[in-house]
Amino acid sequence: MDYNKLALELHEKYKGKITTNLRDQEELDRDKLSAYYSPGVGAVSQAIAENPADLPKYTWTNNLVGVISDGSAILGLGDLGPKAAMPVMEGKALLFKHFADVDAVPVVLDVHDTEEIIATIKAIAPSFGAINLEDIAAPKCFEIEERLKAELDIPVFHDDQHGTAVVVLAGLINAAKLTERSLTDCKIVVIGAGAAGTAIIKLLHLYGVRNIVAVDSRGIVGASRTDLNAEKTALLEYVDDSQDGSIDDAITDADVFIGVSRAGLLTPELVQKMAKDPIVFALANPVPEIMPDVAKEAGVAIIATGRSDFPNQVNNSLAFPGIFRGALDHGVKKITDQHKLAAAEALANLVENPTVDKVVPTAFDEGVVEAVANVIR
Amino acid sequence: MDYNKLALELHEKYKGKITTNLRDQEELDRDKLSAYYSPGVGAVSQAIAENPADLPKYTWTNNLVGVISDGSAILGLGDLGPKAAMPVMEGKALLFKHFADVDAVPVVLDVHDTEEIIATIKAIAPSFGAINLEDIAAPKCFEIEERLKAELDIPVFHDDQHGTAVVVLAGLINAAKLTERSLTDCKIVVIGAGAAGTAIIKLLHLYGVRNIVAVDSRGIVGASRTDLNAEKTALLEYVDDSQDGSIDDAITDADVFIGVSRAGLLTPELVQKMAKDPIVFALANPVPEIMPDVAKEAGVAIIATGRSDFPNQVNNSLAFPGIFRGALDHGVKKITDQHKLAAAEALANLVENPTVDKVVPTAFDEGVVEAVANVIR
Repeated sequence: MDYNKLALELHEKYKGKITTNLRDQEELDRDKLSAYYSPGVGAVSQAIAENPADLPKYTWTNNLVGVISDGSAILGLGDLGPKAAMPVMEGKALLFKHFADVDAVPVVLDVHDTEEIIATIKAIAPSFGAINLEDIAAPKCFEIEERLKAELDIPVFHDDQHGTAVVVLAGLINAAKLTERSLTDCKIVVIGAGAAGTAIIKLLHLYGVRNIVAVDSRGIVGASRTDLNAEKTALLEYVDDSQDGSIDDAITDADVFIGVSRAGLLTPELVQKMAKDPIVFALANPVPEIMPDVAKEAGVAIIATGRSDFPNQVNNSLAFPGIFRGALDHGVKKITDQHKLAAAEALANLVENPTVDKVVPTAFDEGVVEAVANVIR
Repeated sequence: MDYNKLALELHEKYKGKITTNLRDQEELDRDKLSAYYSPGVGAVSQAIAENPADLPKYTWTNNLVGVISDGSAILGLGDLGPKAAMPVMEGKALLFKHFADVDAVPVVLDVHDTEEIIATIKAIAPSFGAINLEDIAAPKCFEIEERLKAELDIPVFHDDQHGTAVVVLAGLINAAKLTERSLTDCKIVVIGAGAAGTAIIKLLHLYGVRNIVAVDSRGIVGASRTDLNAEKTALLEYVDDSQDGSIDDAITDADVFIGVSRAGLLTPELVQKMAKDPIVFALANPVPEIMPDVAKEAGVAIIATGRSDFPNQVNNSLAFPGIFRGALDHGVKKITDQHKLAAAEALANLVENPTVDKVVPTAFDEGVVEAVANVIR
């Protein structure tokens, strides 16, 4: 299937992917219009002015997520700017509606400096019930999310970080069971220390894993490195920072390989250095660090990728629809670490009989959104 | 009808007024999702990165208006802030959809300084195909609109100014005909020199009216005043600035009274000072400067108000849906003075046989949106 061709065709045919509609589908007569707009709507404005907490009672913010990006890290394509980001953000809005009946509006930002992005999002925040940050480059994405979480009274969630981490943890919980391992005792090597890699490391640490080795383009992220930026220095408390060396050193005896790096990075020779029956999550898109057939031939017990055309797709659509559905429905103001752990466990538990070809549900399985939403309280 | 009660009931029942929906209403299978989102959507992003003018070809921006307010002048209620503005902006979005099938998204701003408002709107502008500014207080609304018009490549239109002005001019064209006047020769007094009053004066001047007298809360706006701010000083070139005095002086021998001021301001005694068979547009909301029955008894030939429960409603919904429909459909980048004149004439012409009780169409008449949209090219 040539998805690029199909994408261009569908986008041109429908002139985009989302539209607005009226909640009240009955006839709008003159009286109703006088209640939905001036003069009657003034009473609703006054009610909200008197009690701002009533905003979601009377407006669509109760079901509304702003999907916000500056276009600085669009998919694997890099910094293409806000206009090029729009089809991706509109696509995310489509997924929100399709999977979780959440209204979502794409907002692309023509500012790129950390402070300007924060100021702009704070300025428009009263328009939304929650904010999904998307495709904002590391390392600025970390400060932007942290600051907005601290300064806004609605949930703020950078899906590229935490959505991926939640689904990875869910998959690892089942993969460890299947290979008769204690996940917290595993040696896990994470290749790629950007937005997703950092969030995966932090969530695994929170789960209790202590033997994590992080690798970036210059080798193992350890205390002996002198070239680490502030974000990577902060990462040292979550990994085995006594390590140094190359990816070869990192991977030796690893039980689990998690790649958020680049196509073909994991060769069969490297797999040989891993522990017996290793677990490999090769998440580079669209071409993974190792193809599933090659991985299996090299002795990998369980292989997951980011692709829908292989089993075990690590797909953010498993997490974010339910996380926001739950946050909106249950009046949650912050998505916490405990929420992420609970979401991962809910996803893992949803697979009744895990097999090597099904360590996570698919986004099309029944009950996924409900199971995740249920633990976001 | 108690519109306040109905408004609170309807808003609570439906939990707001608008929602999002998918353009493609057929089943979304795995292949389609891979085209609407990753990996296929990347091709659309790249196409837009290569040619940013293709943004409306592939995204919902081709039909999308941002309805933006800081909540500093909500209806007649004053500065109630962004959250209280949300139901009004969402109501405007409902009207956009209902009358013109335009997708509109309310955005409320938690910044109030002119420069911050401009910076925020510029930052989010690539998200929209056009921008409707709403309920932003005068005088900052003037600079905000002017600057955004100059600095953005999409239409920016402050409806409180120009929407009202277009419908007033449309009504006056027919009212002058009915009272056998030449509109350009009329003496027109405009009470209220805020957003709407200023725009009405400028549009009437553009139409060719030269005998305009403006009145604010301190009296006639003329050259002898020493207390005028920059915006009102700029207004002097559009009015008869040789005048001074009170509202009584202004109204003497006036053919036309236009009030965008306050309830009850126009007494029957003041009407007696006007020319014979005067025309009165009493637009204060919800209670006009003079009630229609009182006006008629005092000798007014034609009375218009802002209310839907009397004839001759000067209703912005006659103008903005068609203006934005036309701008979006015809790729118009700026709404010009000529567009406003043409829209007013189109509205006036739409009333085939004007009567004292029908100088403007109603928003429910057929063909209103099409007639206005047709001249926005």
